[in-house]
Amino acid sequence: MNKGDLFTCPFTVNSEIYNGFISLFNDKNPLHTNSDYAVHQGFSGKVMHGNILNGFLSYFIGECLPVKEVLIQTQEIKFLKPVYLNESLLLHAEVEDVHESVNTIVLKYYFENRDKVKVAKGKIQIGLLK
Amino acid sequence: MNKGDLFTCPFTVNSEIYNGFISLFNDKNPLHTNSDYAVHQGFSGKVMHGNILNGFLSYFIGECLPVKEVLIQTQEIKFLKPVYLNESLLLHAEVEDVHESVNTIVLKYYFENRDKVKVAKGKIQIGLLK
Repeated sequence: MNKGDLFTCPFTVNSEIYNGFISLFNDKNPLHTNSDYAVHQGFSGKVMHGNILNGFLSYFIGECLPVKEVLIQTQEIKFLKPVYLNESLLLHAEVEDVHESVNTIVLKYYFENRDKVKVAKGKIQIGLLK
Repeated sequence: MNKGDLFTCPFTVNSEIYNGFISLFNDKNPLHTNSDYAVHQGFSGKVMHGNILNGFLSYFIGECLPVKEVLIQTQEIKFLKPVYLNESLLLHAEVEDVHESVNTIVLKYYFENRDKVKVAKGKIQIGLLK
């Protein structure tokens, strides 16, 4: 991978992902599970767990890069806008830096929704194995 | 919550969590699914997905704080040591800063294993609702 390389990957926060995430991690905070409460707090409905996006990033790094011999070293995410049930997101990632001396690569990324609104962004540093 | 407040929360990366994470997000990178490959890469066995820890953080923030009216704004994690199947981890979190003017709280945290080795650390900024 080289600096400037671009990748995109589509994801949808469907009910299978949403319910599966709750079953797995048991985060039933009312903001994520109670529509009335979420609307009362000023949102349009139940807000999807931000860490669902981190699960998407796991898939992207583990399965979608041109190399498989990778390991996430650091990861950060900023949540910019709420994501709602059944929203489709497109992940855009770009190789920001390649540090050959220590076999690490830094990617910057953002998720945008169908309205081209960025809902989250951040950086991931990965180590290259082998 | 006040600066210096401490919290702990136990988690175990058992096979239910591990298999459930793979079912949900489909990250079957060989480092996470092929023991021989992982050992060949210098690890003691299959390395658990780092984003399983981010799922644990979702539960911690959503369910274990003294206030429920919270929303994660930013989140970062540094993976320090590999985590293996069936490892039990203890999350330690501390309120690092309270910004009352903007209703945000910054927590710093780390996960340690039973040998008291820190396997990951980072910070989370949360917004207080209402």
